[in-house]
Amino acid sequence: MRIPNHIGIIPDGNRRWAEARGMSKEKGYDAGLEPGLKLFKLCQEAGIKEITFYGFTADNTKRPAVQTVAFTKACIDAVKMLSKEDAELLVVGNTASKMFPKELLPFTKRKTFGNGGVKVNFLVNYGWEWDFGSLFNYDGGNKSSIIKKLKSNDISRVDLIIRWGGRRRLSGFLPAQSVYADFYVIDDMWPDFKPEHFYDALKWYDMQDITLGG
Amino acid sequence: MRIPNHIGIIPDGNRRWAEARGMSKEKGYDAGLEPGLKLFKLCQEAGIKEITFYGFTADNTKRPAVQTVAFTKACIDAVKMLSKEDAELLVVGNTASKMFPKELLPFTKRKTFGNGGVKVNFLVNYGWEWDFGSLFNYDGGNKSSIIKKLKSNDISRVDLIIRWGGRRRLSGFLPAQSVYADFYVIDDMWPDFKPEHFYDALKWYDMQDITLGG
Repeated sequence: MRIPNHIGIIPDGNRRWAEARGMSKEKGYDAGLEPGLKLFKLCQEAGIKEITFYGFTADNTKRPAVQTVAFTKACIDAVKMLSKEDAELLVVGNTASKMFPKELLPFTKRKTFGNGGVKVNFLVNYGWEWDFGSLFNYDGGNKSSIIKKLKSNDISRVDLIIRWGGRRRLSGFLPAQSVYADFYVIDDMWPDFKPEHFYDALKWYDMQDITLGG
Repeated sequence: MRIPNHIGIIPDGNRRWAEARGMSKEKGYDAGLEPGLKLFKLCQEAGIKEITFYGFTADNTKRPAVQTVAFTKACIDAVKMLSKEDAELLVVGNTASKMFPKELLPFTKRKTFGNGGVKVNFLVNYGWEWDFGSLFNYDGGNKSSIIKKLKSNDISRVDLIIRWGGRRRLSGFLPAQSVYADFYVIDDMWPDFKPEHFYDALKWYDMQDITLGG
């Protein structure tokens, strides 16, 4: 079976999941932590080399404060949770904004935890325009290989993007790294994560041809 | 019904369509012309304001010459065909390369044909890295609104991308303009285009929420 090197995870649907249970929207984020750990362990077992989780974006921070507080806390908790595993963690996002949680500043350079192994990237207060902003006034050498010149340059090309919650769009997720990514959408909400979701995505990916635009 | 302003069209599957009929691969491109005209007319009727067709990419030109000749000819024919309609045409792509057909040079500034109306963009010898190359050494004012600074700056944000041929990926299609686009995939090959494909995509789009990342 052909296994993707790098999987992008868009864990959408937390608020809809909470609402469907009669809870207020922001209660959905905490319920996404356990799925994140489970998915990480499945990736580890499957030999995935790199995972990028879509935490939150600069756009998301315009939501009501009770929600921004909740998803920011969930991101902090997720990073701390994974720092107890064997992983190489990196948080990427706009640290110059006050919406970036200072608890995650120590993670903005890649660091190895435990025995390392899987690279795990978190996009936290990420914005695609922010990411591409480093191209302005770029003064070094070869103008191709744009990924290497982005603020997210330590995140490699994505092979497979899995999105929970049924929406079929990228919502600003790493536009350059995702140009050739195969995009798999799961209708279930992220807190309803099941291992079958992951296995189904891998099976589907295995049937795709890989041309990288050729 | 909520109608998208701007639809991106990825007319994939021409080669598979030809092979399935026992024809050589390059014979599939000509069969994509008539569908293009039909789709254009449906968009016109539906009140779509802008359409972008994915012609071919710089990556595609690495294919066997018999294929590159065929898809280049199909793009030239498509632009000429639509220049007989009421449309505002623009061809966007790397004109500095010899793979750019000189017949299309007159179309690289937007031009109104007939009574104008729908903006129609063709990506011809397009490359996403080429498109973003204009950001290097960009020296003017505000650094946000990246789309306005791309080589493709006369192409606006895409609301809905429809891809024929079953692949679920963007393959480098306007990464900046597509960050919030809803992505609809049709399993039939492009030469098998049916009006129902278009109507189904519009119906599906009507059911999506639009958040623009918020």
